[in-house]
Order: sequence, then C-alpha cells, then structure tokens
Amino acid sequence: MKFSKTLAFSSGELRFLDQKRLPQAEVTLKIRRWQEVVSTIQALQIRGAPAIGIAGAFGVAIAARQILGKTATPATLAAFLKASQAIHEARPTAVNLMWAVDHQFAALRKAGLLRPGPAAPIIHCLEKNAQAILEEDLSIGMRLAEAGHGLIKDGDGVLTHCNAGGLATAGMGSALSVLYRAKEAGRKFTVYVDETRPLLQGARLTTWELKRWGIPHVLICDNMAAMLMKQGRITKAITGADRIALNGDAANKIGTYGVAVLAHFHRIPFYIAAPYSTFDANTRTGAQIPIEERKPEEVLSFHGVPSAPKGTRVYNPAFDVVPAPLIRALITERGLIASPNAKKVKAFLAASAPAARHGRGARP
Amino acid sequence: MKFSKTLAFSSGELRFLDQKRLPQAEVTLKIRRWQEVVSTIQALQIRGAPAIGIAGAFGVAIAARQILGKTATPATLAAFLKASQAIHEARPTAVNLMWAVDHQFAALRKAGLLRPGPAAPIIHCLEKNAQAILEEDLSIGMRLAEAGHGLIKDGDGVLTHCNAGGLATAGMGSALSVLYRAKEAGRKFTVYVDETRPLLQGARLTTWELKRWGIPHVLICDNMAAMLMKQGRITKAITGADRIALNGDAANKIGTYGVAVLAHFHRIPFYIAAPYSTFDANTRTGAQIPIEERKPEEVLSFHGVPSAPKGTRVYNPAFDVVPAPLIRALITERGLIASPNAKKVKAFLAASAPAARHGRGARP
Repeated sequence: MKFSKTLAFSSGELRFLDQKRLPQAEVTLKIRRWQEVVSTIQALQIRGAPAIGIAGAFGVAIAARQILGKTATPATLAAFLKASQAIHEARPTAVNLMWAVDHQFAALRKAGLLRPGPAAPIIHCLEKNAQAILEEDLSIGMRLAEAGHGLIKDGDGVLTHCNAGGLATAGMGSALSVLYRAKEAGRKFTVYVDETRPLLQGARLTTWELKRWGIPHVLICDNMAAMLMKQGRITKAITGADRIALNGDAANKIGTYGVAVLAHFHRIPFYIAAPYSTFDANTRTGAQIPIEERKPEEVLSFHGVPSAPKGTRVYNPAFDVVPAPLIRALITERGLIASPNAKKVKAFLAASAPAARHGRGARP
Repeated sequence: MKFSKTLAFSSGELRFLDQKRLPQAEVTLKIRRWQEVVSTIQALQIRGAPAIGIAGAFGVAIAARQILGKTATPATLAAFLKASQAIHEARPTAVNLMWAVDHQFAALRKAGLLRPGPAAPIIHCLEKNAQAILEEDLSIGMRLAEAGHGLIKDGDGVLTHCNAGGLATAGMGSALSVLYRAKEAGRKFTVYVDETRPLLQGARLTTWELKRWGIPHVLICDNMAAMLMKQGRITKAITGADRIALNGDAANKIGTYGVAVLAHFHRIPFYIAAPYSTFDANTRTGAQIPIEERKPEEVLSFHGVPSAPKGTRVYNPAFDVVPAPLIRALITERGLIASPNAKKVKAFLAASAPAARHGRGARP
C-alpha cells in the first residue's frame, strides 16, 4: 500500500509536517531539542496516539544527544531522566506516549546501558529502538488494515471522527488504514467526515488524507451525523482510540462517545481500530483514564477570530470514553475483538506479550 | 420581565441588530427596502423562526410603501404580491415566515383593502398588523415562560442548542424565555450552551443573552453534550423549533435531533418550546417538512479562514427533525403538551383557533 511516512529521523533531527498548519500549508518542522518535542506534542503540531508515541521515543533519543555529552555522568543522566519524564507527561490521555518512553528505558536496561559511561552507545540504542517502533507502527497499520477491511462493503457510508489516519501514526493509520485497504481492494464506499470541533482534525486532516487516497468523502459538522444515520446514509462508524482499558472501554477524541451512542440507537455498527500499544493493562476501566482538559481559547475562537463573548466560561475536554458494550468490535493488528470485554482484552494482551512482539519489552 | 425588543419599526423603517456581527459588534441595521428584508433573512442577519416571521410581516408593509405609490393600481398590486411572495419564500423551513406573510394578506382581505385604491390605508393596515404580531410575540414569550418555568429545578444543568432566545423572537424567546422566568423565580441552575455549528448561534448569541440575564452558563462544542449527559451534569435539554408538524414531530436547527437521541439514551427529558405560529396544520409529519440546505462555505471556513481543503464536498442541512416520541413535552403559550402526538396537537390547534387569538386570521 502507498503511504507517506508521517515522521522521519536522521542525524539527530526529527522531521514531521506541522499538523496545525494543514491543510492550508505543508510545513515541515525540523526538531533537534527535546523541549520542542514536548511543545509540539502539546500544541498538537504532531498528534494522534501512535504518532505522539513515536515522536516521544525519538524525543528521548534527542534528549540523550542533547544532554549526556560525550560521556554520561550521574549528573547528565539525572538531567536526561528528568527530560524523559517531561516527554512522558507531555499529554495525559494517550497511553502510547508513556508506552514509548517506557519502552526506550526498557531497551536501555536490556542492553545494560542505563548507567554512566560513553554516550554514543546509549544514543545509538535509543535511536535504533525509536526507529524500530516507527517501522513496527507501519507494519501494524498494514496488519490492522488487513484485519479490518473486510468489514467495509460496497455501498457503505462510513462515518469517522477526528483523524485516525496516516498523520496520527507513522504513516498508515488505524481507522483510516482499514478504509485505505478497502479502497485498494476495490470496494466502493463514501466516508462521512466529522469536522471534529474544536480543532477540526476531521475537516483539516482526514479530508486531506482521503483526497490523496482518492476516496469519495463528505465533510459534515459533528452535529449532522445523527440525521445522516436516521436517513440511512451512514451505515458504519469507525474511529481510532487514545487508550483502551482492560475491560474494553476506549478513550478517543471528544465526540466519539456521542457517535457511539447515536450508532447504537440507529443499530449501526461502531468500530474502534487501534494497535496493541493503545491498550493499557494498568487501566481497569474507562473511568480510570485521565481526560485532558484543554484551554478555553480552542472553543472561544477560530484562527484568532473570536466566536463567543470574551470571558465566557468553557468546558473543553479533549477526550471522552466509549463504554465497551457500545463497541461492535475492536480492530487490532492481530484481528478483531468482537463485543469486547475484560476476558477478551486480557486474552488479547496475553497473546500479544513480549515473545510475540519481536523482543520488545513488556509493558511496565 | 426585563427584555430588549429585537425588532423595532417606525416611519417605514425596520431596525434590528445584525446577528451575524454579534457578539463582536452590536450593529443596528436600518431597512427601508423589501429586498433587504429578504437578503438579511437569507444571510441570517435576522434569524429565529418567530423573529423572521415578524421581519417578514414588516417586510410586506415595507413592500407596500415602496411599490404601491399613492394609489394602488392593478400593476403595482401585482408587483407588491410578487415581492410578498419573495419574502414568503426567503427561507423554506420555519413556518412562521409563511404564516406571518399569509397573516398580512388575511388582514388586508378582512379589511377589504386587497384591491386598487388609495395606498395609505393598505400600508397602515399592514404596519398595524405587523406591530400586533410583534406585540403578541412578546406576550406569547411571557406566557410560554410562565407555562414552562416550573420544569426547571434548583441544581439543574440545562442543555440548549442554537438560539431560541430574545434574538430569535420579538424579545423574550421561546426556550430561553423559560429559563429567564426560572431565573426570575430564583431558581439556581446552569445552562450548557451548544456552540451550534456551523454558524455558532449558541456561542455567539445564546451566551450573549445569558450573560445579559446573569444566568450561569458554560459553552461547549456540540460533540461534548453526550459526555456531560453521561456525567450527570446535563439533567434537562430544551430547544426551540422552526416548524412543528401535526403529529408533534419538530424541525429545529441541525443537531437538535442528535440532542434528542442522546437525551433519550441517558433518560434526560427533552423539551421543545414554541408558540402557536410554529405549528403547521398543513404538515402531517416531520417527513414533509422541507429542510433548507445551505452553502458549503459555512462549513468549509470560519470568518473567511478556510478549515478544510478547497473543493471538499460538504453536506450542510440547516435543520433536522425530532420525532415526537423523543419529546417529553412541547411548551406553548397555552401550556404543556406532554408526550405530544397527532391527537394532542390537533386539540391544541383547535383550542388556539381564531376566536381565541384576538381576531387573528386562521391559518390558511
């Protein structure tokens, strides 16, 4: 399958498209400081659970190069750990970020490198491991697409919310990769794109990707999906996720819960596509997933133009949680988990444990 | 109750705030040509089902003054009828506009004035009748508020969608008048304001009104309401309507159907507040209500800043229809219609017929 890599790394420099500028401008950011990794993640210049995981992994490598010097000392190691912690905490909801940072440290420990000594092998280990995470994410996208694309039939109208595409991952996508593979298999369908307020990732990013893939699509405001379901134009809904709890509850972009309830009411299947790294063995149910609350300005204005009276009180949660019973199936790189529940998710995580994962460390 | 009149008319001039400019600027439009009545209604500079009805009624009076000359001739009368027809058709969904234009002609017929002859009595009749519609709308808002305010209890979190306030009417509002009266009665509650994409009437207009009334309110994106219902923060939902069919199905701003479904799923009562003039005896069910589709630009950009790639296909219906079974009660100026259905709506319309309506003509 054709795709463009969302992130690239070489000679200590991480490069990716500034997603805040899309679709008006395609601006490549070039980053050589870990602080910029944190700030670009927080500003959503890079976003999407898998993509910020990959950026975080490279961020740790960048921090090592920036902080450790020629030889790592106890002092520079401590500063490096502190920087890594800041990357770990850049955003709270998507578990992939924490997963990727932890994974970097697991790799260092495994290689016996988390101690004072020459910095070059540490940096090399971190860059290699981050690159492996990126490559595996591409492969996961392919396998996830393979597992899910059969769900999309000729004539379907598929609703998606936010952007779970190439831009949200290393380059293939989660929810959108399923659609890309279905398109490649010759299926004829239309995608209804929720614009996804407040930051319009659907309007700005998903339409941009679907256009490149030549998939027919119609942009709607989030509040129009209910009517389209009633009219029978939307026949399926599919989104990504930022964290999936052990019982199958899934956090995703604000508005996803509403989509799931509306789909349930109209007897339309609602799917979530997400890789292994989005599952969090440490979160028992959706109620335990921390929900990031973002600045009121995101709701109060658009590109600097005010849309409400100054000082208006705003509630701006970035995510909500879909309870497992509203999910027809989770689409993963190891196949579908139909009607997900705690038992099925645990079995999936057990089957996806270290041995089966090309030697990548277990989740901390 | 305190309120400001949304529209004022004197010496042939209709004045109202430009609702497209709110809340950034309070600009009063002064209109002396019927063509501007049509264009400002179409551009949503004046909006809200009752308000465009009143504007339409004054529009007919303005057309008479503009077209008939000193003495109405068959030719000027024909031109006047044509202009009135254009006002009638300015927007297709809200029935109040058609109702008000028809009402003007019923008044002329009743006075024997729909014929060639001196223009002054024709103009006088139309201006007086439009003023009566305006005054009655204020009185209706008061009575509607009185009928509905008991539904709002201390501690309620009340969701509203779009703007069914003073700006949408002569000055009191439908849904919001209920809240204003509850506030006046000392009830403590919070209003959750759906921003209401694409034109943000909630963010721009409802917050502006609630602030003036000193009612605590929180602005949210439309896609956040589901989460707030699940959290128990939203305990009631109330909106206006643009047309109510004989069976109780109600058309209102796009997104209202989704609100009703979400309320149903969370067992939260959903109310619609609307006056007699919003009911359409000629529309049997919601399926017969014409739904205005508006320009893609409303979704593709905000205040001129593009939010999606150029040429993206858009679906932009301005309204959707809430089926009667999802409505806990219709709040009217003659009391509540609980669990509305065809039988109850017919009984309501029969009881509200001409005799009971201060001599206003029957619906055509």
